[in-house]
Amino acid sequence: MSAVTSPLVWEHVQPAAARRLLTGAIDAFAERGFQATTTRDIASRAGMSPAALYVHYPSKERLLFEISLYGHKAALDVLRSADTGPTPADRLRSLVSAFTAWHARHHTIARVVQYELAALSPEHFAEVATIRRAISAQIEQVLTDGATTGDFTVNDLPGTTLAVLSLAIDVARWYTPHRADPEALGKLYADLAHRMVQA
Amino acid sequence: MSAVTSPLVWEHVQPAAARRLLTGAIDAFAERGFQATTTRDIASRAGMSPAALYVHYPSKERLLFEISLYGHKAALDVLRSADTGPTPADRLRSLVSAFTAWHARHHTIARVVQYELAALSPEHFAEVATIRRAISAQIEQVLTDGATTGDFTVNDLPGTTLAVLSLAIDVARWYTPHRADPEALGKLYADLAHRMVQA
Repeated sequence: MSAVTSPLVWEHVQPAAARRLLTGAIDAFAERGFQATTTRDIASRAGMSPAALYVHYPSKERLLFEISLYGHKAALDVLRSADTGPTPADRLRSLVSAFTAWHARHHTIARVVQYELAALSPEHFAEVATIRRAISAQIEQVLTDGATTGDFTVNDLPGTTLAVLSLAIDVARWYTPHRADPEALGKLYADLAHRMVQA
Repeated sequence: MSAVTSPLVWEHVQPAAARRLLTGAIDAFAERGFQATTTRDIASRAGMSPAALYVHYPSKERLLFEISLYGHKAALDVLRSADTGPTPADRLRSLVSAFTAWHARHHTIARVVQYELAALSPEHFAEVATIRRAISAQIEQVLTDGATTGDFTVNDLPGTTLAVLSLAIDVARWYTPHRADPEALGKLYADLAHRMVQA
């Protein structure tokens, strides 16, 4: 079991069988993709029968939605907690550092969350999209504040917001634990993102 | 048919049936993922029988390998052609601009190429990895040159190379034609990447 799907991260999911199904689904989606994963595959990773899976989740899509919702909420919480510091530069550095380290540490769930969005139902996608907008807004706000104080020069606010988010999110694509320490990577990316906008 | 899988881009693939299979495979892999795509699905998109597919390709993996090889070679060609200009700053801007615009324009193939690497056979992966190293080396070289001339300050060469590549590659994840013009996006990202390293 990887650190990513450690039961500790999912303590809020009760009972334990539902939690095992969720972590089994993350591993299966990450390995084979959502479309190629069967409910039988997920159930067997959780040591259960396919019929027992349906006691907890009505569908494979519902599992993806729970994972996506949790992943997006966790990423937004990380950003909100990191939005601290006396200046916009301090806040931006703290935000990028925490967001990058989170994507390194949780690269498996982040990959599933980012690459399987198209498999969500329209209703579930809409719910996740609301959180995605809040994530963007958190970065956009600090860039706006820094531009207002004159600390930052931002020529294209939505484009630069997307670029800052991309830096962190793309970590999930290439990250493997032997390649970098999440904290060190966070600090480097905080520095690069700050340089991207400093006046 | 999308611009991405336009037959023009694949003119080098002969005969036409092999080309139709390749573009069918790109669309299928992008929509459903490599694991969930069957050779029957690919053949039917090409208007052929599964048996006819095997005349041109021994396996589904072989199709992925051809797509991955072509995608990586095309991206490397774009970088090599763009590595021009009197100063490291000019070269970096030209490289990032071209690489970003390429990932926007070819987002479907870029997604398949980047997200399905794990499905390649070890031998095929090794061949693609050689081109990936050449792509990184192209960025790393201009950063090294800029640091040598004193135009750039680069505190972590491999980390900064990866960040510059990430900016462009992550475009493939979120890009849709209504969101940005590939050329304008390339110019913005060239500016941001240059700011990341300028002394």
